[in-house]
Amino acid sequence: MNTLKQHVLEANLSLPAHKLVTFTWGNVSGIDREKGIMVIKPSGVEYNHMGLEDMVVVDVQSGNVIEGNKKPSSDTDTHLALYRAFPTIGGIVHTHSRHATIWSQAGKDLMALGTTHADYFYGTIPCTRPMHDDEINGRYEYETGSVIIETFAQRGLSPEQIPAVLVNSHGPFAWGSDPANAVHNAVVLEEIAYMNLFTQQLQPQIPAMQPTLLDKHFLRKHGANAYYGQ
Amino acid sequence: MNTLKQHVLEANLSLPAHKLVTFTWGNVSGIDREKGIMVIKPSGVEYNHMGLEDMVVVDVQSGNVIEGNKKPSSDTDTHLALYRAFPTIGGIVHTHSRHATIWSQAGKDLMALGTTHADYFYGTIPCTRPMHDDEINGRYEYETGSVIIETFAQRGLSPEQIPAVLVNSHGPFAWGSDPANAVHNAVVLEEIAYMNLFTQQLQPQIPAMQPTLLDKHFLRKHGANAYYGQ
Amino acid sequence: MNTLKQHVLEANLSLPAHKLVTFTWGNVSGIDREKGIMVIKPSGVEYNHMGLEDMVVVDVQSGNVIEGNKKPSSDTDTHLALYRAFPTIGGIVHTHSRHATIWSQAGKDLMALGTTHADYFYGTIPCTRPMHDDEINGRYEYETGSVIIETFAQRGLSPEQIPAVLVNSHGPFAWGSDPANAVHNAVVLEEIAYMNLFTQQLQPQIPAMQPTLLDKHFLRKHGANAYYGQ
Amino acid sequence: MNTLKQHVLEANLSLPAHKLVTFTWGNVSGIDREKGIMVIKPSGVEYNHMGLEDMVVVDVQSGNVIEGNKKPSSDTDTHLALYRAFPTIGGIVHTHSRHATIWSQAGKDLMALGTTHADYFYGTIPCTRPMHDDEINGRYEYETGSVIIETFAQRGLSPEQIPAVLVNSHGPFAWGSDPANAVHNAVVLEEIAYMNLFTQQLQPQIPAMQPTLLDKHFLRKHGANAYYGQ
Repeated sequence: MNTLKQHVLEANLSLPAHKLVTFTWGNVSGIDREKGIMVIKPSGVEYNHMGLEDMVVVDVQSGNVIEGNKKPSSDTDTHLALYRAFPTIGGIVHTHSRHATIWSQAGKDLMALGTTHADYFYGTIPCTRPMHDDEINGRYEYETGSVIIETFAQRGLSPEQIPAVLVNSHGPFAWGSDPANAVHNAVVLEEIAYMNLFTQQLQPQIPAMQPTLLDKHFLRKHGANAYYGQ
Repeated sequence: MNTLKQHVLEANLSLPAHKLVTFTWGNVSGIDREKGIMVIKPSGVEYNHMGLEDMVVVDVQSGNVIEGNKKPSSDTDTHLALYRAFPTIGGIVHTHSRHATIWSQAGKDLMALGTTHADYFYGTIPCTRPMHDDEINGRYEYETGSVIIETFAQRGLSPEQIPAVLVNSHGPFAWGSDPANAVHNAVVLEEIAYMNLFTQQLQPQIPAMQPTLLDKHFLRKHGANAYYGQ
Repeated sequence: MNTLKQHVLEANLSLPAHKLVTFTWGNVSGIDREKGIMVIKPSGVEYNHMGLEDMVVVDVQSGNVIEGNKKPSSDTDTHLALYRAFPTIGGIVHTHSRHATIWSQAGKDLMALGTTHADYFYGTIPCTRPMHDDEINGRYEYETGSVIIETFAQRGLSPEQIPAVLVNSHGPFAWGSDPANAVHNAVVLEEIAYMNLFTQQLQPQIPAMQPTLLDKHFLRKHGANAYYGQ
Repeated sequence: MNTLKQHVLEANLSLPAHKLVTFTWGNVSGIDREKGIMVIKPSGVEYNHMGLEDMVVVDVQSGNVIEGNKKPSSDTDTHLALYRAFPTIGGIVHTHSRHATIWSQAGKDLMALGTTHADYFYGTIPCTRPMHDDEINGRYEYETGSVIIETFAQRGLSPEQIPAVLVNSHGPFAWGSDPANAVHNAVVLEEIAYMNLFTQQLQPQIPAMQPTLLDKHFLRKHGANAYYGQ
C-alpha cells in the first residue's frame, strides 16, 4: 500500500510541475484492484505541504475511508464510479487545466486533428452532455462519474483507447494504467486542447484527420503491434 | 498592527509570484476594522525591495497617513471607498493582470461559464460603466471606488458573493476576507478571464452556465452548507 | 564612460530576463550627449557571454567606432538617426518581442484602449509606412531610422509622449530617458500589444479610450503635475 | 565520432530548454558525411536521463545501426531520407512544438510576413500534401521523408534557403548546418508560427511581405554578401 501511496503522492505533486493546476485544483488517485482499495489526494491540502501520510485510502466497493486522518478529495465519488465502470484503468486525474477546461466550458468534443492526438487517443475525445438538475442536486460527484460512463457507453468508446473526457461546463478527467500514466495523458490532453483551439481558428471547417493516419499513429504505439518510441 | 503589515507585505510579494503584475502595477491592502486602520503598499516601490517598514498605515475614516515614511499607493482612495462601502471585506487587491484587463478594456462583464468560476463567484463579474469626465477630472481615485460601489448597488450584487470587479478601460479589483484571500480571488479572476476569452471564441453565442450547477458549486464551498475541498 | 557602458550592458542583459528576446534578437544603446558618444551592444554576441568590454563606443556625429574590439550592432545606424532627431532621449532598444512584432507585421497602429497604455504612452503608438525599394536597397538601417522620424513628424508626435514605434513588417523600437527606461517602455509596449490584440478580438469595433481618461493617466505620471505611483 | 555524439546529445537536451518539446516528443540527429554515419537520439528515452552512451550510430546508406545499445528514434528513416536528398545539411530536428504543429494540422504554408522570418527563411515555409493511404500503410517514416523531398522538388525550393517544413497533420522538421543550427532554426520556426497565427488574425487578407525586404534581410545574413549580426 505504501508503494501505491507513493505513486499517488508523486503523481499529485507532478501536477503543478506540469502546470496543470492552480492552487489545489486537481486530484490524482490510484487503485490496487487485488486489495480493492483506492488511494486519493486529501481534500483542500496544498501541494507543497502534501506528504505520504496525507494520502487517503478508500474501499472501492463501499466508498468508506479505511486509512488516513484527512478527508478524501471531494471528487472521490467520481473516481470510484470510474474505477468500477472501467475495469482496466489504474489511475485517474482531474484538473482544471486551461485549454481542456475551455473545451469543456464550450461543451465541444476534441476532434483528432493530428498525430500528437493520434499517438495517445484513438479518435474524438468526447464532451459529456449537460447534467440534469436532479443529477446536480442529487449525488452530484457520483453522477458526474455516471454521465462520463454513459457518454462512453452511448458512443461505444473504449476507456483504454480514449483515456480522457471533458465534463461539460466543468473540466477534464484523464486516466491511464497507473497514476503517473493518467497524469501523462492529462498533459497530452491539455497540449492538444491548446493546439486544436488555434488549428480550428486557422482552418474553421477542418475535418477530423485521415483515419489511416489515425490508425497508423495510435496502433504503432498501442496494442499488439506497437513499435514506436520518439 | 505588525501582523497586518506582515500579511499585507506577503500578499503584495505574492503578486509577482502569481504572475499578476509587471513592474509595480499592483497593490494590496488589508484592514483592521476594530482599530479603524488600513495597511497598504507604498507608492512606486519595487516588489523585490519592499519590506515591512515600507507599509503605510492609513486611518480609514479620515484617509490620513498615521504611520510610515513612504507615500501610500496612489490607489489608496479607491481602497478606502471600498472598505467603507463593503463592511465585511478584509483585504483588497488591484492589478493589471493581462486577461482581466483585456475584459476591462473591452468593457464587458465576465459571465459564469463553468465550475471554475462557480467555485468562487456566484454569477457574472460586472464591468463598471465608463466614468464621466467630471469624475475623472475630480477626485479620480475616490470616484473609481464610487463607480464600483454604484455597480454593485444597481445590480443588487453582494461583495461577498462576487469578490471582484472589472473597472472599465482600466483593470480588475478583487477582495476577500483578508489580503491573502483577496489575492487568491485575483488569481482565479485572471484564470477565468483567460478561459472565458477563448471559450467564447469557440462558442460565440454561449449562454451563462446552468443556474443549478452554479448554485451547486458556489454553495458547496461557501455559506452554511459548504462541504467541498478539491 | 564606464558608467554608461555598465548601464547599456545591464539593459541588454535585462532583455532576456523580461522575455523580450530570443537568441540575440535585440539591442540596447545609451547616449552621453555631452561627450557626443553612444554605447551599443556588439553584433551577434550572445547575452550570457556579454561583458563590459564587449560594449562598443560610437561617435554620434560621424558614426565611427571610437572604442571596442567588436563590431557594433548592425542596427547602429537606426539608433544614431533616432538620437540625432530626438534630442531628449537617452536610451534606445530594438527587439522582436512577440506581440509588438505581430502588430508591426500587420502594419497596424496600437490604439490606446486602457489605462495601462495611458500610464506610459500619450495616445496611439504608430506603425511606420512600408519602406520604398530604394530605401531598402540603399542605406537600409539608416533609412529605417528616417521612416520612424518621418512618421513622428507627419503625425505631429512627440518622442517623449510616445516613446515607441512599430516598424512595418519588422518590429518595435522603444526609447526613454536612459537605457533602463527604454527597456521599461519596451516591456510596457509588449504588454499592451498583447492586451490590445485580444481586446479587439472581444470588441472588434472598439474606439480609442476616452481622451479625458487618457489625459488623467498620462498626466498624473508625466510632466509638471505628476503625482502618481502605483 | 564522440564529438558528433556530443553535439547531437547537446542539441537534444536543448529542446526542453527551448520549450520545443513535451515529454520525449522530439529528436535531433547529426551527420558525418565523410564517414557516412548519422548519430541520432534513442527511442523513448527521457531527456533528463539521456547520456552520451545512449546516442545511436546509424549507417546512412544502409540504415543499419552500427553502434549503440538502444533502439534509434522511430523517425530514423525520415532523417535518413532527408540526409540523402539534401546533401548540404548537417543536422535535423523533429518536434511537435505547439504553433508549428498548429500550422501543420491546419495544412497551411507559413508565409513570410516580416523580417524575423526573412532573417532565416527565404520565403514561404511549405506544408506537405496529405500522405496517401499506401504511403501511410507502407514504409511510413521513410515516406514521410519522401513527401518532404517531393514538396521541395515540386516547388523548386532549396533546403539551405528554407531550412524547415511542416508535415501535414503532423508537425515540423527543421535542419541546418549542424545539430545545434537545426535546433536554432526550429526555435525560429516556432516563433514565426506563433506570430503569423495572430498577425493573420489581425490582418486576415495580409499578403506576403515585400520581396525587396525579404531579399534584404535574408541576403544580409546569408550568402556571399552577408554582413549582419543583431
